[in-house]
Amino acid sequence: MKKNFLGKKWFFEDFLEVEDSASTWGFEIKKEVLSLKSKFQKIEIFDTKEFGRVLVLDGIVQLTTKNEFVYHEMLVHPSMFYHAKPKRVLIIGGGDGMALREVLKHPVDEVFLVDIDSKVIEVSKKYFKSDFSDKRVKIFNEDALAFVRQYKNYFDVIITDLTDPTPVAKFCWNRIFYSDVLNALTDNGVASFQSGSLNEPFAMKIRKDLSNVFKYFKTHRAFIESFPFSEYTFSFGSKRVNLDKVNIKNMFRGFDLKYYSPEIHYASGIIPKFFSAK
Amino acid sequence: MKKNFLGKKWFFEDFLEVEDSASTWGFEIKKEVLSLKSKFQKIEIFDTKEFGRVLVLDGIVQLTTKNEFVYHEMLVHPSMFYHAKPKRVLIIGGGDGMALREVLKHPVDEVFLVDIDSKVIEVSKKYFKSDFSDKRVKIFNEDALAFVRQYKNYFDVIITDLTDPTPVAKFCWNRIFYSDVLNALTDNGVASFQSGSLNEPFAMKIRKDLSNVFKYFKTHRAFIESFPFSEYTFSFGSKRVNLDKVNIKNMFRGFDLKYYSPEIHYASGIIPKFFSAK
Repeated sequence: MKKNFLGKKWFFEDFLEVEDSASTWGFEIKKEVLSLKSKFQKIEIFDTKEFGRVLVLDGIVQLTTKNEFVYHEMLVHPSMFYHAKPKRVLIIGGGDGMALREVLKHPVDEVFLVDIDSKVIEVSKKYFKSDFSDKRVKIFNEDALAFVRQYKNYFDVIITDLTDPTPVAKFCWNRIFYSDVLNALTDNGVASFQSGSLNEPFAMKIRKDLSNVFKYFKTHRAFIESFPFSEYTFSFGSKRVNLDKVNIKNMFRGFDLKYYSPEIHYASGIIPKFFSAK
Repeated sequence: MKKNFLGKKWFFEDFLEVEDSASTWGFEIKKEVLSLKSKFQKIEIFDTKEFGRVLVLDGIVQLTTKNEFVYHEMLVHPSMFYHAKPKRVLIIGGGDGMALREVLKHPVDEVFLVDIDSKVIEVSKKYFKSDFSDKRVKIFNEDALAFVRQYKNYFDVIITDLTDPTPVAKFCWNRIFYSDVLNALTDNGVASFQSGSLNEPFAMKIRKDLSNVFKYFKTHRAFIESFPFSEYTFSFGSKRVNLDKVNIKNMFRGFDLKYYSPEIHYASGIIPKFFSAK
């Protein structure tokens, strides 16, 4: 929500009201760039002093231009490297186009992007200069649940870049959807999920459910400044690829990434036992 | 500062006013336990809904009972293990007694604790049940700068648990002090410093200065929920011990720690290049 604070205009995350949380964070607004309601959700864009340009959906910060690269590199590249040679990729959600940007750094043949809300894609083109024009890319503004169910044994990598269980996304956060994703993967396929904070109960449940659906399952963590109060997690699953045994070191040739590296790959895969025990 | 927010009583960190920061965080106050001015600083203690009991010095959160173990384990145990058999230990600052608690898990002969403010020790005994009664412990309520200068080649481990450069601590954050710490160490001695956030300019300068003073220098990182917006750093220095080559794996026998482990030791020593390059 927008609120005056210390004589200036601030944005505070709405989770405060939604979950009766006892801590909050906010940032000073330099400029309100956009505020609209699409058919599915409230979309807001702010320019800020500290985080650059910020995208907010239904009151929850989605990304900031200052640090989105950490999130999108960790969401995309481990799954692409775990598979080794992905040709067909599906992105679920991700209408901001930034996971797509990372996917296209790999020599893929085809990328499908399914985001129910065409308005997110439209404003991302305009206000974040996101580029969807690559000929290998097909956009579908459809319900992801029904879309995924049409495919069996088709995608090498599926990247699930959904918002937290807000009204528009909540139907995808369950084991039926995870099984549909599993079935849409090729045998050596790898799925990637943004899987919430390390310490939030709903995110712990997501990771537990995922680990029951996928034979091979691994969580990585990274700190993302615009999702404070916990480290953030990225979870990966496969039917046949033993993720702990993939040697990703030689796959970095030709990649110039800002955050993800072989050392970060290993370090991010160590989860403090305090959280993994829960 | 205390502030009404959404109809409830909150505490927001003062760094907002001090550094003209553009983001802030705060927590709801359940009970104001204590607020006083010692000779050196303002001391506040709050009971909170989310973080348990919180100690605040000069407006900056020092610790919360919910997650102080991450901070104190990372500050203390790597230095003790890097040295392998520390007998004489010095704690600079740390009047809350929690670094001391971790040091005493090791078979040391002698621990000196130098905190200029006896009031911090007094309230920590009363409100955090901190225990300073071990016979090996000697407390000095003196100026740390002058104290350290009296010792040459004496301590196996020196743990610097100072507040950020607030008025009372700022004179210790410079290369003269770091050199005095170096001189007070035995040849195989190891110094530990809380060295601020990964991304703050003043903390980057601290780490750069430290790396110029100590021949062997290494930074570890950990996320601490009550210091949001960045990962936190712990820096270690030695004259003779090559910290990258110490095998700490066999030293954990008999230790039951909540956060620090051989895996976390390695993972926490990987610093994202985005920050190390700065």
